Amino acid sequence: MKKFRILNRWYLSVLLVGLLYPMNQLYGQDQSLHWTKKLPGIWAASAGKPEAVNFTTASGVNPKQEAINRMVEVEFPLPENEIKATVFDGKLYLQFPLEVGEQIFGLGLNFKTVEQRGRILRLHMDHYGGQDNGRNHAPVPFYVSSKGYGVFINSARYIDIWVGTAVLKDGRVPMNSKDRNTDKTWTAQPYSDNISVLIPAEGVDILVFGGPTALDAVSRFNLFNGGGCLPPRWGLGFWHRTPTLYSDSMVIREVSEFKKHQFPLSVIGLEPGWQSKSYPCTYEWDKGRFPAPAKFVAALKDQGVQTNLWMNPYISPESELITKLKPFTASHTVWSGYIPDYGLPEVNLLVGDHLRKHELNIGVSGFKMDENDGFDNWLWPDVTRFPSGIPAEKMRQLYGLMMQKMTTRLFHDQNRRTYGLVRASNAGGVSFPYVIYNDYYSHRDFITALINSSFIGVLWTPEVRGSATAEEWLRRMQTVCFSPLAMLNAWSDGTKPWSFPEVEKQVAWVANLRMQLIPYLYTCFAEYAFYGRPPMRAMNLVAGFTAKADIVEGKLGSTANPYGQATRKEMKDQFMVGDNLLVAPLFAGESERKVVLPKGKWYDFYTGKLAGEAEVITVAPGLDKIPVFVKDGGIIPMFEPGSASLKKGSQNNLIIRVYGTKEATYQLYDDDGESFDYEKGAFSWREIRVTTGKNGKLEGSVAKAERSKPDNFGSIKFNFRSE
Amino acid sequence: MKKFRILNRWYLSVLLVGLLYPMNQLYGQDQSLHWTKKLPGIWAASAGKPEAVNFTTASGVNPKQEAINRMVEVEFPLPENEIKATVFDGKLYLQFPLEVGEQIFGLGLNFKTVEQRGRILRLHMDHYGGQDNGRNHAPVPFYVSSKGYGVFINSARYIDIWVGTAVLKDGRVPMNSKDRNTDKTWTAQPYSDNISVLIPAEGVDILVFGGPTALDAVSRFNLFNGGGCLPPRWGLGFWHRTPTLYSDSMVIREVSEFKKHQFPLSVIGLEPGWQSKSYPCTYEWDKGRFPAPAKFVAALKDQGVQTNLWMNPYISPESELITKLKPFTASHTVWSGYIPDYGLPEVNLLVGDHLRKHELNIGVSGFKMDENDGFDNWLWPDVTRFPSGIPAEKMRQLYGLMMQKMTTRLFHDQNRRTYGLVRASNAGGVSFPYVIYNDYYSHRDFITALINSSFIGVLWTPEVRGSATAEEWLRRMQTVCFSPLAMLNAWSDGTKPWSFPEVEKQVAWVANLRMQLIPYLYTCFAEYAFYGRPPMRAMNLVAGFTAKADIVEGKLGSTANPYGQATRKEMKDQFMVGDNLLVAPLFAGESERKVVLPKGKWYDFYTGKLAGEAEVITVAPGLDKIPVFVKDGGIIPMFEPGSASLKKGSQNNLIIRVYGTKEATYQLYDDDGESFDYEKGAFSWREIRVTTGKNGKLEGSVAKAERSKPDNFGSIKFNFRSE
Repeated sequence: MKKFRILNRWYLSVLLVGLLYPMNQLYGQDQSLHWTKKLPGIWAASAGKPEAVNFTTASGVNPKQEAINRMVEVEFPLPENEIKATVFDGKLYLQFPLEVGEQIFGLGLNFKTVEQRGRILRLHMDHYGGQDNGRNHAPVPFYVSSKGYGVFINSARYIDIWVGTAVLKDGRVPMNSKDRNTDKTWTAQPYSDNISVLIPAEGVDILVFGGPTALDAVSRFNLFNGGGCLPPRWGLGFWHRTPTLYSDSMVIREVSEFKKHQFPLSVIGLEPGWQSKSYPCTYEWDKGRFPAPAKFVAALKDQGVQTNLWMNPYISPESELITKLKPFTASHTVWSGYIPDYGLPEVNLLVGDHLRKHELNIGVSGFKMDENDGFDNWLWPDVTRFPSGIPAEKMRQLYGLMMQKMTTRLFHDQNRRTYGLVRASNAGGVSFPYVIYNDYYSHRDFITALINSSFIGVLWTPEVRGSATAEEWLRRMQTVCFSPLAMLNAWSDGTKPWSFPEVEKQVAWVANLRMQLIPYLYTCFAEYAFYGRPPMRAMNLVAGFTAKADIVEGKLGSTANPYGQATRKEMKDQFMVGDNLLVAPLFAGESERKVVLPKGKWYDFYTGKLAGEAEVITVAPGLDKIPVFVKDGGIIPMFEPGSASLKKGSQNNLIIRVYGTKEATYQLYDDDGESFDYEKGAFSWREIRVTTGKNGKLEGSVAKAERSKPDNFGSIKFNFRSE
Repeated sequence: MKKFRILNRWYLSVLLVGLLYPMNQLYGQDQSLHWTKKLPGIWAASAGKPEAVNFTTASGVNPKQEAINRMVEVEFPLPENEIKATVFDGKLYLQFPLEVGEQIFGLGLNFKTVEQRGRILRLHMDHYGGQDNGRNHAPVPFYVSSKGYGVFINSARYIDIWVGTAVLKDGRVPMNSKDRNTDKTWTAQPYSDNISVLIPAEGVDILVFGGPTALDAVSRFNLFNGGGCLPPRWGLGFWHRTPTLYSDSMVIREVSEFKKHQFPLSVIGLEPGWQSKSYPCTYEWDKGRFPAPAKFVAALKDQGVQTNLWMNPYISPESELITKLKPFTASHTVWSGYIPDYGLPEVNLLVGDHLRKHELNIGVSGFKMDENDGFDNWLWPDVTRFPSGIPAEKMRQLYGLMMQKMTTRLFHDQNRRTYGLVRASNAGGVSFPYVIYNDYYSHRDFITALINSSFIGVLWTPEVRGSATAEEWLRRMQTVCFSPLAMLNAWSDGTKPWSFPEVEKQVAWVANLRMQLIPYLYTCFAEYAFYGRPPMRAMNLVAGFTAKADIVEGKLGSTANPYGQATRKEMKDQFMVGDNLLVAPLFAGESERKVVLPKGKWYDFYTGKLAGEAEVITVAPGLDKIPVFVKDGGIIPMFEPGSASLKKGSQNNLIIRVYGTKEATYQLYDDDGESFDYEKGAFSWREIRVTTGKNGKLEGSVAKAERSKPDNFGSIKFNFRSE
């Protein structure tokens, strides 16, 4: 060591900085984490002093223990000694190991990327601002690995996460310094063997979910959070939101137009103009535009159309609610509206009563809960004080979740299911019957979001609003009809499904296909609710899907790419609906596309013809349809064209399509489609069985609904498509 | 209050969340701040328990007390009772009042916006990623108000700041709720009467700087931080950085090309290839490309050319430095290089000795210190542990500052000035002789950054690298020659100043104009050092400049603008050089532009003709020049064309241009241009006086240099331009 020479003032000041931190604080000690098995394949550990308010306590949802108990037993999936936790500087530092080649998915509703390894995120509730930086409508701190496990950081703080970018001096892989001057193998991003997490709190509860597959880990996460939601059957029909200042008669006229144009319609959504004041809101009907709301809602219901109402969290001083509510609101306002503190029981009761009186009791079917996400420019700042004492940061992460919880409970209390829309969700919200939407509008990125939603226990709709061309209109409609919520949102643009006459027929055709697919879709959602398997899902959750992202070498440039960084080209534009359907959307301007078919044979959904097997195919299906494929042995139960009624108790004829040439079975879910009686057993899984008959041909049979259980189906026919 | 009915499990869980926060923690108490006068017009207050390591302790710089003492006395500029501080949730919340119409500037090196009111920032050291969100190369927590005061939050944490967006329930302006359905005056951003700040620490020191003008407040801030840097005179000449793998002979050849093309050259910058290894670095010369570095540096110096060397903070295991240094490095690595902990005196001594031995002692004039800013993808994560115990977050905010401090001191110890480049600076760095640069390359945004640098005590160069067209090349060169550091950085592109032959003459002309302007520029920097006034500065710091930003009404659209937001069109493309020159750059593709002339008469710099007075003019100067104006009575001392030598002790002839028709004075700074002897008094301010002579015409005189003080000037001539 060089001797210390002149101790002038400068050295002294440097020295002082060093001495200000007493030696015993220099390094927080790594804590060993004690992993406790909570349920089969689910382990928990506490690091530091975990906070009381987290996603689980805020959502108040209990795990679906029985369903988890039925899953296969697995070993703890990670080397325990390589998970590290340290409390330092009032914050918790976590480190998880990564293996070579391991892929990481999840960590929020990203719109541009699927694989998260190599990325850095700050998980922060916000509207999506065009960058996958952790700010989005569902910044869920859960990731799932291609190695078949998941990790959930149960903290409603803004969490920083370095997904395979941090490189330790003493990591498992020895340091490999290179000379950028002369070594062509130099890279701007040296290999990292870990995921690092910074939680700005002195402790956290961590949960690890076993597999063996990535889909199993996701399913366990979903079941731990109460299982997926089961929407009412009508929720899977076609939705239309009318322009914001429409009156009751204008809405009724619009509904009749759907019949004229032979378009299906299940739900009408009303935008802010239904309220007497909005931005901030009264949650009360406008007497001018809707003089008789109960009659109006009943009239729609008579035509088989449910009513969904827009709202946002901010309460107008002119709402009859405000006198009692005001003491329970935050220190700040949004759009000059009071911010209810849903961390307080009083708020949940007061707002709940108000909504029950004005909306639920006249038959409103659900809500679209807007602007509980951000963005910063008008949301409350993080210095806002809430009377519950919950810090604004956590309120931001939890607000959408708490609104979902409150409204979910209101409907549950009336024993009818709701299905609605929300701009903000998070871990803990898996079982709440809400689908995320936003103001962003890239069709391609909407599909990537749909893919990513399946990793993190949320639902996402690529809603259609307007389009520059008929082609774009049709392509968007073709995708939204394979999503959790098929909706045209015309609140501002006033577009109708038939606004582009040159593609009206094709749009009507796919909207009607959506209606026919309801038995299959409804079963997908039952699998979500009962088994935790997401209804729409990423290819990366399919066994036998192995497409790796292409790495494209970077070209050095002083400005465009000063580090010669490579980029990753991912497969992020095809997805699964349930186990059997593979959907490959086309985007405006494209006449053909590549489709990656996983292991096994895959058949064209429309023609039944063999499309390929574990290969990349190129398809050019024309304008009328987007490519959809069914896996070998895939059974798709569908309603007969044009006939379906989604009202409780109605029976609809079933056509069961069978693809491929092998024997297969399928569990068709059935219940009354509207109530929570299924929670008390009023449901059935009816086995569809396809076997080889005596003539060597496939033949099918369907188990009857159990005695005294609902039976939604009339005649049942089989349709063998690949014979 | 509605009665509490069924206390089922759900209500209970909500209730619990509420109860988890004991009532006495619900609201942290607002603290009253005690403002202590530190120096005339400078007040300090502590909120909570301030941290020991802040910008002031880390930079180790003392205020220029005498200079501050000479400034005018002012009253505390804010209503004390409207400044609020609260510690809550382990964080400090601050609130400062805003008046109607008050404009706020500063808060980091923004590239797209000048006015910050209405914006939300998280001040976070980073490369600039294309958005003014607080992440940039100098996230200085200092703002200055159009009302003539400044506020400095002396915390090296990531500070969140809501600049006039947060709306309080019980603010000074009553809540004014509007119905968006029907009220055309509804706005997405209601009026906010405050600046809110969240500091993730339990305390902070705050400083308030009085005016009376905004420029006075900035000057006080700069003087508090040690005053601006005074570069060596050669630093204000023309700089050129050669391609990274150039050898000594290639550099020497390039230098001779400058002579051939009649381009001035003061500094050659060498890029990573001068080192034996780089990324990570050895800080040792490469024996192949530079077998005799001392000779090489001396050969350049003989031709009047200084040598500047690129480096970044990350140390190669192959550096001779590493054995001793390794124990004082961080837990993580960057590009497989060790990260020295400059919070430790050992590191400052070891690295300092190494640089002295290999670079300073052979005559190297300074450094370009790269990649101490970010970006996240390769910088250390915030979970990195430094042996000094300083948290990574603070190291991130301070790292560039600490490297500047260390190298500044090395040169000071040798009594010679340095001038260099750095990618990261912050509050506290005002006196360090470094200019910020980056990899971004929008010419227009570069000018906005130059404007913003003047609010926050940093310097910025819009360096030139390459261009798509000759026009762009010329336009960039024309601007960089009016900036703190006139540089072509050809590290990757290999461009030469004469690479576009069609504009070679014009580029040479403006580069030579830069050289002529050195007496004026050097005086501007002396004013920065002695009086804290930034050399290049925003129009908003000019008395009599009143241009307001235009507010452009937003057009509602479901996707493009769902809230019908208005946008602000700011004047962000003209700036002042010192008190007398107004520079209005042109950008590629533009043949004319608007220029806002402040109060008083303004004259064309080139022709001396009257250009206008307190008005917006449109100018179309052609390709050869960019518009530059001089204020009435403006005195511009310049070197004679083509003759200047910047070597210490050389004398150059002076031409003093005088603009306008009125009597005026000017203080011309002079010293030896290289050493720190000026700190001991070896400087003079020579008064230039323009008076009306007996013939009614203006005539000029210059005070002699004081006896025994350096005199840089030979013959002195006056040039009255506006007669």
